[in-house]
Amino acid sequence: MPHIKLSDELPGIVGLFAFRPETAKPLRALAEVLLRGPSTLTPGERELIATYVSSRNDCHFCLTSHGAAAAHHFGGNEQLIVDVKQNFEVARVSAKLKALLAIAGKVQQGGKNVTPADVERARQQGATDLEIHDTVLIAAAFCMYNRYVDGLGTWAPHDPHLYRQMGAGMAEKGYIKADPPPAKVGTTAA
Amino acid sequence: MPHIKLSDELPGIVGLFAFRPETAKPLRALAEVLLRGPSTLTPGERELIATYVSSRNDCHFCLTSHGAAAAHHFGGNEQLIVDVKQNFEVARVSAKLKALLAIAGKVQQGGKNVTPADVERARQQGATDLEIHDTVLIAAAFCMYNRYVDGLGTWAPHDPHLYRQMGAGMAEKGYIKADPPPAKVGTTAA
Repeated sequence: MPHIKLSDELPGIVGLFAFRPETAKPLRALAEVLLRGPSTLTPGERELIATYVSSRNDCHFCLTSHGAAAAHHFGGNEQLIVDVKQNFEVARVSAKLKALLAIAGKVQQGGKNVTPADVERARQQGATDLEIHDTVLIAAAFCMYNRYVDGLGTWAPHDPHLYRQMGAGMAEKGYIKADPPPAKVGTTAA
Repeated sequence: MPHIKLSDELPGIVGLFAFRPETAKPLRALAEVLLRGPSTLTPGERELIATYVSSRNDCHFCLTSHGAAAAHHFGGNEQLIVDVKQNFEVARVSAKLKALLAIAGKVQQGGKNVTPADVERARQQGATDLEIHDTVLIAAAFCMYNRYVDGLGTWAPHDPHLYRQMGAGMAEKGYIKADPPPAKVGTTAA
């Protein structure tokens, strides 16, 4: 049961966004620019980093929804997501992404754990400053989102089909919620 | 030395904001609404929560700058900040703030660590759902900011006077950076 009174219908962070629209706005904007904004990392690679960190933080809602978004970007390849969570070093992803996932794993434990050798490994595989920056910030941001979702005891659905739908929506439509359309003249407010 | 090429002059998160303005915008907006937006928690109480979490994450730049902002809000009482970091349970803060700091400390370790008993203690001391929500999100957000600052190896000044100046600016002017004024007609663009 959530620690505070939230809408019964809305799971995970969605219920928190509805509870506090003032903080939802920058939290949604941050996810949008980090995961879907212009970048030389693909949205699928960035969702994989988010999924991996959420998995290390054991946040069911975040790891399953972002895992579904990542799978959607990778043509529905759900096995790839399982492999990355289990041991990304032997998963079928690029050597550069492996080096970035290693950095993300260090950030999940604490910022000071990232070493010059971790960064050098990523550079050797062609990672740019911006890619290293974004990897660190995605990992740090999911240490926030995960704690937010679990720290308030939100509920998470179990049906994998629901997460596939949610992940497809996140991948295709993104994280910014459109403002509701203005009420038509002459209609009655509910 | 920072792990990526940043401006030599700008310390901590300030250098990161200059490096990546696209992510700086929602990160600044989140700090502004959480720490200075309308709330029944005072800005000083919220800066104390941010300082306490940053202290537990051992992020020198964040704990010192937000500690200075908190001290500024509390009339320059730097001893209070030291006391809260050392053992908030015996510091001269309200019983409600102690209960909220206890929740923040649990979130710093991981969202699932927050128990119904932690939340009940805060309610017994008069904390509202919104105050509990904001405490969890401030703690979660500083688990992000701290990891961002340290995960990229940014430098932090040591001079306490600089932090007092920075903290006063954060407390009085806030976290949103004003857009630069438009160039005057007739001047030449650089």
